[in-house]
Amino acid sequence: MRTVNVGIIGLGTVGGGVARLILSHHDDYVANYGIDLGIARACALDAQAARACGIPDDAFTTDWHDVVSDPSVDVVVELIGGEHPATEIYEAAFAAGKHVVTANKALLGRHVEALAAKARENGVQLKCEASCGGGIPIVSTLERDLVGNKVLTIAGILNGTTNYILSRMESEGADYADVLADAQAKGYAEADPSADVDGFDAASKTAILASIGFGTRVTTDDVYQQGIRTIAAEDIAVAHDLGYTIKLLGIARRTADGVDVRVHPTMIPLDHQLAKVSGAMNAVYVVGDAVGETMFYGAGAGSFPTASAVVGDIMTLADPISKGATPLPEAEPFSHTLPLRPMDELETKYYVRLTVADRVGALAETVNVFAKHEISISLINQLEDGAADSDACSVIFLTHKALEKNMQAAAAELAEASCVRNVANVLRIEDTAAWSDGVMAN
Amino acid sequence: MRTVNVGIIGLGTVGGGVARLILSHHDDYVANYGIDLGIARACALDAQAARACGIPDDAFTTDWHDVVSDPSVDVVVELIGGEHPATEIYEAAFAAGKHVVTANKALLGRHVEALAAKARENGVQLKCEASCGGGIPIVSTLERDLVGNKVLTIAGILNGTTNYILSRMESEGADYADVLADAQAKGYAEADPSADVDGFDAASKTAILASIGFGTRVTTDDVYQQGIRTIAAEDIAVAHDLGYTIKLLGIARRTADGVDVRVHPTMIPLDHQLAKVSGAMNAVYVVGDAVGETMFYGAGAGSFPTASAVVGDIMTLADPISKGATPLPEAEPFSHTLPLRPMDELETKYYVRLTVADRVGALAETVNVFAKHEISISLINQLEDGAADSDACSVIFLTHKALEKNMQAAAAELAEASCVRNVANVLRIEDTAAWSDGVMAN
Repeated sequence: MRTVNVGIIGLGTVGGGVARLILSHHDDYVANYGIDLGIARACALDAQAARACGIPDDAFTTDWHDVVSDPSVDVVVELIGGEHPATEIYEAAFAAGKHVVTANKALLGRHVEALAAKARENGVQLKCEASCGGGIPIVSTLERDLVGNKVLTIAGILNGTTNYILSRMESEGADYADVLADAQAKGYAEADPSADVDGFDAASKTAILASIGFGTRVTTDDVYQQGIRTIAAEDIAVAHDLGYTIKLLGIARRTADGVDVRVHPTMIPLDHQLAKVSGAMNAVYVVGDAVGETMFYGAGAGSFPTASAVVGDIMTLADPISKGATPLPEAEPFSHTLPLRPMDELETKYYVRLTVADRVGALAETVNVFAKHEISISLINQLEDGAADSDACSVIFLTHKALEKNMQAAAAELAEASCVRNVANVLRIEDTAAWSDGVMAN
Repeated sequence: MRTVNVGIIGLGTVGGGVARLILSHHDDYVANYGIDLGIARACALDAQAARACGIPDDAFTTDWHDVVSDPSVDVVVELIGGEHPATEIYEAAFAAGKHVVTANKALLGRHVEALAAKARENGVQLKCEASCGGGIPIVSTLERDLVGNKVLTIAGILNGTTNYILSRMESEGADYADVLADAQAKGYAEADPSADVDGFDAASKTAILASIGFGTRVTTDDVYQQGIRTIAAEDIAVAHDLGYTIKLLGIARRTADGVDVRVHPTMIPLDHQLAKVSGAMNAVYVVGDAVGETMFYGAGAGSFPTASAVVGDIMTLADPISKGATPLPEAEPFSHTLPLRPMDELETKYYVRLTVADRVGALAETVNVFAKHEISISLINQLEDGAADSDACSVIFLTHKALEKNMQAAAAELAEASCVRNVANVLRIEDTAAWSDGVMAN
């Protein structure tokens, strides 16, 4: 049994957790798995971060080149995030014949295929379990456990911050701005919350999961993104009365018209398994044509939960290495490029909330706009006191299935209608039953 | 890329699903993973079963020896269940240098360690993802994804039949016998339901998951078993009023006093994630010291869901084989044997339902029995019309934490008390918050 050495670059929340987990559990890994895992090098901006994790000074460096060039390092663990110098770190590590383990969803969401190709050329692996769903085993589940299936749908609560905000808005009837401010004060949300609340973080994860689950090329830029800034307590309350909750979902579906990938606030039935995932927890719903509906639930962030995923990847590589074997190189590239279905062609039901100035005249005018764009209305609910001043109110429209491009055109025209103060929200009501279209009959 | 050949023994519900899945998805496996998976031999009692799956007659045999002795077979897939001839099949396959994939929880629950040792001696693997949780990836999750953790708790709804029965009893207020009869008529329950409703099936799975998750020796016989036959609609209704649901859980906990493994109807809070798993679905809750709380949800049975797990194991072996590499031998044996905590020493809260003849005299007598056995009562609820005839009624007692052996002694004495018609149920109220004792603070 030889020692398997990792070199960690980045000792922040996740990197520090990885170092602490490896050092605190070393003897268990030896006893239970025969794996002697060591930290040969650790790179951070200041030595104090390393000392705080229990890393000896002689293993510490401020220069990542020292890590990737250290001949004793088998696996480079990149936990600094961002595109640079992460990209350069991977290239140098691969060239030196070292595997890379990372949680870098922003980089992989854009360039996973090119980076995986470089790993493959050098006979090593690029592993990224921690990039999606924090501690939830989902990347490896798609890469290995579910490969017997044609994966039909991946739909996940992939961002803990937004799920925390929406959950509190639902339980407390509070408004978005108030909950966000409190979440920021408590450190659950960043000072600049954009990456979370505007859906970029979830879009990166959706791209990675779709790429792996469908075996095709999906990048973050392919994923339609709509965040939660416009969601009001009123929307959540009305949704609840209608039997729905509102979740920010990353949705990837394999359809006859191509791969459908999008991140947006989504109305799903209250009794759906995903509707029951509250607070900062994450969950990924996966439908395979053989296995049917599955869900994977856990902490989507945090030091030790994310470290659990990183160390899982490290141990998967360390197992053969410690036994004198060599991990297989990164798998062959995706065999095919499925077409992407343009968002305009999405067909779904919608929830539309308008603030209208004149509750008497509004209906005729607005209903005509929907009709003009071939959108069939299933329910209209003109709310009392929907707006601050008395002569204005909120009107809720639920539609039958309509085309996204028609709804966007209607929304634009409604915004200009004389009786409409503003189009407060256009939300999609997801047909969760359709997620299982194509499941094999037992 | 060379063809990887499986030999399937047993073409029933699961075996037939495996054959159909492999044959229908062959081209996808080649295209997506570069794995050319073939069925070289298939063994069943009659050729019609094989033809129905699309297996050519020349691959069919009624003698399992033909499968394990076929030099072209790389992986033997045993799906006949039971201890014999399954044990002989494994031994012959291992001796012939063939890996074995199985769903045989009854056999593995009793002998996983000895069988794994035989596989290891012969340099091959024994894989059993499908033995627990049907299509849910949970064995591989414990064997690989969560190895960075010390696993603290595994608690699962591991039997779909009993969860289906309890869910219908809860939603319809129906009685056990009626739902069971209907489930049997629909084919959801066996004519002899004992293995399901008495907890043996769940106990086998709990033993397998505890053995893998804790890295220690746990066999089915080590698992305390209590089934659901005694659960009445009345118990579920009262539990619901108290904020609980009743689930048949397989629970494995790593405690300071040893490994606590048991299967019994369990009262858990209505808002717990496991409480929301209804119908025939299964779910396994796993708490690791780093990852914290996770849950894995899916179909626990059925032809294609179970086949998904079997084919996942096959593909994990086929990946290196098809690339000319050799899968590592079965992992080294568990490094340590944790002590088992005797069931008598379980400390938990209890729900006790007595049918008493004399509602006036009953309380004093029964309360004294609890007191004598050092059991502190937290709530007493004497129900109206709790029993068929008017002068008898049901009395519900909730207790504070008490020792199992004291409760059993009290129950035995209560059964003899003059005012007690019968001790209808003694159910455990699980402290689900304690499942996370020992999780590392982020």
